[in-house]
Amino acid sequence: MADVVEAPPEEQLMAAIAPEVAKIEQAMRTDLQVATQGTDPLLAEVLEYGIFNGGKRLRPLLVVLAARLSGVAQGKNEEIYKLAIAFEYLHSATLFHDDVIDRAGLRRGKPTVNKSFGAIAAILGGDFLHSRSMFLVGSFGGTPALEIFCQATNAMVDGEFLQLRNAQNYNLSEQDYFLAIKGKTALLIAATCEIGALAGGATVSQQQALAEYGIGLGTAFQIVDDLLDYQGDTAQIGKAVGNDFQERKMTLPLILALSNANYEDKERLLYLLEHEDARESGFVEAYGLIDKYDGFSLSRNRAESIVAEAVAGLEVFSGGDDVASLTVLQALAKYVLVRQK
Amino acid sequence: MADVVEAPPEEQLMAAIAPEVAKIEQAMRTDLQVATQGTDPLLAEVLEYGIFNGGKRLRPLLVVLAARLSGVAQGKNEEIYKLAIAFEYLHSATLFHDDVIDRAGLRRGKPTVNKSFGAIAAILGGDFLHSRSMFLVGSFGGTPALEIFCQATNAMVDGEFLQLRNAQNYNLSEQDYFLAIKGKTALLIAATCEIGALAGGATVSQQQALAEYGIGLGTAFQIVDDLLDYQGDTAQIGKAVGNDFQERKMTLPLILALSNANYEDKERLLYLLEHEDARESGFVEAYGLIDKYDGFSLSRNRAESIVAEAVAGLEVFSGGDDVASLTVLQALAKYVLVRQK
Repeated sequence: MADVVEAPPEEQLMAAIAPEVAKIEQAMRTDLQVATQGTDPLLAEVLEYGIFNGGKRLRPLLVVLAARLSGVAQGKNEEIYKLAIAFEYLHSATLFHDDVIDRAGLRRGKPTVNKSFGAIAAILGGDFLHSRSMFLVGSFGGTPALEIFCQATNAMVDGEFLQLRNAQNYNLSEQDYFLAIKGKTALLIAATCEIGALAGGATVSQQQALAEYGIGLGTAFQIVDDLLDYQGDTAQIGKAVGNDFQERKMTLPLILALSNANYEDKERLLYLLEHEDARESGFVEAYGLIDKYDGFSLSRNRAESIVAEAVAGLEVFSGGDDVASLTVLQALAKYVLVRQK
Repeated sequence: MADVVEAPPEEQLMAAIAPEVAKIEQAMRTDLQVATQGTDPLLAEVLEYGIFNGGKRLRPLLVVLAARLSGVAQGKNEEIYKLAIAFEYLHSATLFHDDVIDRAGLRRGKPTVNKSFGAIAAILGGDFLHSRSMFLVGSFGGTPALEIFCQATNAMVDGEFLQLRNAQNYNLSEQDYFLAIKGKTALLIAATCEIGALAGGATVSQQQALAEYGIGLGTAFQIVDDLLDYQGDTAQIGKAVGNDFQERKMTLPLILALSNANYEDKERLLYLLEHEDARESGFVEAYGLIDKYDGFSLSRNRAESIVAEAVAGLEVFSGGDDVASLTVLQALAKYVLVRQK
């Protein structure tokens, strides 16, 4: 088994990725300038507002790192960044649309596109980015990349439908939860790694390893996201805490608590969920019950094992030339566990 | 100048295109079965409901006809249909999203996807179709087709933004109107013809001629659409009449009437537009004022000249082998003028 690299402190990781993040931001600015040439100024304004909001750029970063790790030739740099930013566009398009669906007011601590510019701008701006992302993937990655990309997009839509079906299903199993977040989040993260690998000329086993790393990273990311929805700090995560509970979304902490609780506590938790008044006033009580049955710590354990497995899977790259990219990929996986926003 | 083919009666045209329409419907059913394999059953249900609704299939039909006219080899049939249905998917995706934006209740006489399944299903179902359409165009048409497709999609979004900006601009010029509908409608119709031409192996001048035909057809189509919004029969067009006026959309009949009216009538029309109560009760009066200044007949004249030009532009194909496709394209352009729904 590979040596497990110790997670560097957050600042060290952020410093390590900062130059790539800056290049990704620059690539988006350049590309958007071309894409919005001659279009309505409001469209450009909406895109600027919605995209440049201090996002972590995790998805494009993964494309670049996976490509480098697979040995991308220097001359292919432009292609890699075009593929990378396609994922950030797609991600932004999803957020634009999600905020219309959820009628969310805040995103990263500032008003959502939907809130600031209205639903038309949010839906159409999202469509524009969606279309541009497909164009970039098709043009710079060819049909194999487009196929991976579209499968991941469609899985994402499917995952949302599944989540919709799962909502208010108080008997949801852990397995159902993992299936839904695989579609909703993990397959797209896996696609960033796969398309990066493809563009970098990875071998089949390298591509496979990176895809599995992506699935693990995405799954852990979503578990932590769901934990933060209960445990995060509103000021830090930039949106309200307790949303999922109010929307009766069956996320892992709640699923585990319901499955482990005694009869009385389970009934009480279900009562709090099912009655709007109780739900609003009873969040602290519900939190306590979930905690009593280790819903939070067990969820965190799951995320930790998944990350450990994802990191171990990158072993296939150890001994390669690009130690820096490997180290960052490993550190990113661990960062997912400690992030506070 | 080419002989102008007399428009056959509507039934004759419908009979001529019926076999192609049936093939297009079949191609969509086959493709959707593959695309939704293993996905949530609700997603498949939403797509089935939203797509198979008695649509005219104008866009895919144009792809097939343009390809045939350009001399597509028989063996390429499957590709042509895949490209063709991509346009119907995109069109449906747009309608799904439009109905969320407009909160429309009816589409072709039955409840919209948004109304029947909710906004989440409408937005995500649209995203799924959007993604599938890009995938088909990229896979079966390659980068040149994808480029045309994405440019048209983005122009469509841009046209909607422009229309948004134009709304309630009571000084809107005819030129502004034509610019907005070019983006919103005509460029995408042109793209069907261009991509069909590409797939059929057209010469550059043939491709150009078909693109211009598409622009003309699309422009006339939109003018007639805007006329039907005032003059159509609710039962026939399957949605409420007078919507555009209530939303203060500046369409051609209104623009022409405002620009030709005397001071008093112009002020009255503006009063009716600007005051919600007057707008609701004063539709018949507004209709009369628009009619007094020939807003409707002048709009129809514009559409007629545009169609005549579009038909004349197909001259380059006269004397070719495929008289049937040419005849149908010419007849379709004329049908646009007489359609009642």
